[in-house]
Amino acid sequence: MRSREWHLLRRPQGWPTPADFALVDRELPPVQAGEVVVRNLYLSVDPYMRGRMNAARSYAPPYELGQVMYGEAVGRVAESADDRLPVGAWVRTRRAWREAFVCPAGEPELIDVELAPPASYLGVLGMPGMTAWVGVHDIGEVRPGETVFVSAASGAVGSLAGQLARLVGCRVIGSAGSAEKVRYLTEDLGYDAAFDYHAGDITGQLQAAAPEGVDVYFDNVGGEHLRAALACLNVRGRVAACGSISSYNEPQPGPDNLAVVVGKRIRIQGFIVWDHADRLPLFTRYVGGLLQTGQVRYRETVVDGIEQAVQAFLDLLRGGTHLGKLVVRVSSPDD
Amino acid sequence: MRSREWHLLRRPQGWPTPADFALVDRELPPVQAGEVVVRNLYLSVDPYMRGRMNAARSYAPPYELGQVMYGEAVGRVAESADDRLPVGAWVRTRRAWREAFVCPAGEPELIDVELAPPASYLGVLGMPGMTAWVGVHDIGEVRPGETVFVSAASGAVGSLAGQLARLVGCRVIGSAGSAEKVRYLTEDLGYDAAFDYHAGDITGQLQAAAPEGVDVYFDNVGGEHLRAALACLNVRGRVAACGSISSYNEPQPGPDNLAVVVGKRIRIQGFIVWDHADRLPLFTRYVGGLLQTGQVRYRETVVDGIEQAVQAFLDLLRGGTHLGKLVVRVSSPDD
Repeated sequence: MRSREWHLLRRPQGWPTPADFALVDRELPPVQAGEVVVRNLYLSVDPYMRGRMNAARSYAPPYELGQVMYGEAVGRVAESADDRLPVGAWVRTRRAWREAFVCPAGEPELIDVELAPPASYLGVLGMPGMTAWVGVHDIGEVRPGETVFVSAASGAVGSLAGQLARLVGCRVIGSAGSAEKVRYLTEDLGYDAAFDYHAGDITGQLQAAAPEGVDVYFDNVGGEHLRAALACLNVRGRVAACGSISSYNEPQPGPDNLAVVVGKRIRIQGFIVWDHADRLPLFTRYVGGLLQTGQVRYRETVVDGIEQAVQAFLDLLRGGTHLGKLVVRVSSPDD
Repeated sequence: MRSREWHLLRRPQGWPTPADFALVDRELPPVQAGEVVVRNLYLSVDPYMRGRMNAARSYAPPYELGQVMYGEAVGRVAESADDRLPVGAWVRTRRAWREAFVCPAGEPELIDVELAPPASYLGVLGMPGMTAWVGVHDIGEVRPGETVFVSAASGAVGSLAGQLARLVGCRVIGSAGSAEKVRYLTEDLGYDAAFDYHAGDITGQLQAAAPEGVDVYFDNVGGEHLRAALACLNVRGRVAACGSISSYNEPQPGPDNLAVVVGKRIRIQGFIVWDHADRLPLFTRYVGGLLQTGQVRYRETVVDGIEQAVQAFLDLLRGGTHLGKLVVRVSSPDD
């Protein structure tokens, strides 16, 4: 069996370009006893992958040059040499950016496609959804009646973060990069207020949307968004520092008002969802239940074809026009 | 009885100047039943007072123009119309920047001058000392074996912060603004390493002093110091954000590396010592004990005469040449 896979050719300086990547066709090794072949159906593209393209070791090792990039994927077992994992089983792995692979049968995680559709295990029920859940509850410690501000609010993480905060009884404000995304926030997701950060001064728009100030800021963006949030945070405000997409490809000045953390006793707490992996079953059960009862809504934007994966990722870094989680469909379940 | 007192005449723009203040002589009102007259012996000058000179309400109301400025002071009861507080009692109040005042007898806090000399209740046993204690233990949560970095380490807060962290079993690094101050840190206070932040790149000097990284940064300075600390902090590092003296009088760019808080799961926690006032008796007993056994050392720099109070404060904001706590002696106990 052959598999196409995306390799990182060189480490991007600033904004990545298609020439930094190559789609490589290779023959899979034969399956040994205790192994399975998994064919990926959906690949995830996520902002954190930009960090893995740099040489510096962060919380995870960088992508290796000339090697396939890792990432979340959902697929089905196509061939099995282990009774524990039969052909046809739906699984999630971190072996993305490729069509198929051989792996030990104990590695893939079974997913319940009765609970929710397969691709949702890359989004609302996947790493981004769990990031939202951890950030809102464990890091932001949101409480009923508080005002919560979420940046990149129409994305995979932000769209769930705001809904979870609303379920707790918070007033929720979101920022996004287009009028259509802003409508999505208020009309589909139940955000109490939202604004287009391209449409004017962020601090001014946030002050207008949060006249009583912000108690928790769920930060996916950094830069000017963080500066605005610091200006608007109330005493004992919290920042759940999840990401900083504004600075991934070009340096951003730091917020020149960081000194307000002292007088306002602000807590800024960085977090990584993988640190909370032990709570994945609880998360899946809880948010899976919210999906079934319709208390949480989500969208996916599906890009077709593994050839499109790099372009989809580059669009994601620019903000893009997609709503919700961006996934790449590699092949259909019936292929 | 007459009393001279310092008034704020106008709100400083940028660095304050002597012309922003006036020393005013006034007649005290007669003492009523239930009141006392306190004559101040030592006044405290502290960096936080710069914030009170601005119009914006922070955690405390701003100084009023044309009114005496508040602040910590130690004095003795000179006249009493209440049996609870006899003449001669040593007291601490927040009625500084003046020679004497009339107040309700229930207001002043008695201090134990057998435990430690009077002026120490403005420094190592006062608000600065308690700030160090809260910041090291409650906010920084220092643990044995960790590396702790303290900026403005020869000052009233920093000089105790480093010693408290060493008592826990930390390796302690300090920065200060002169070679003499650096010697004071390592030779008198037991800092494991120290550097002069004027003597070269702060990040480079910190990296050299902390080759295994920093676990807790006690921030009194902000600006370039905070940037350096963020660069050197280890995973799950903490910043006890106590002050930001570098930005009190002129704007400072924010740290352009703030995004590292995510991957390193850094916590930045602002704090104000007054929030922890309920623990003052415990603090006084604990640090008072450390002073008596010689486990903690301190210095005071005494400036003579209330006329010198503004100049002492301005020197403090510039970094000054003093070691430890800077206090102004208003009169001697025998006056």
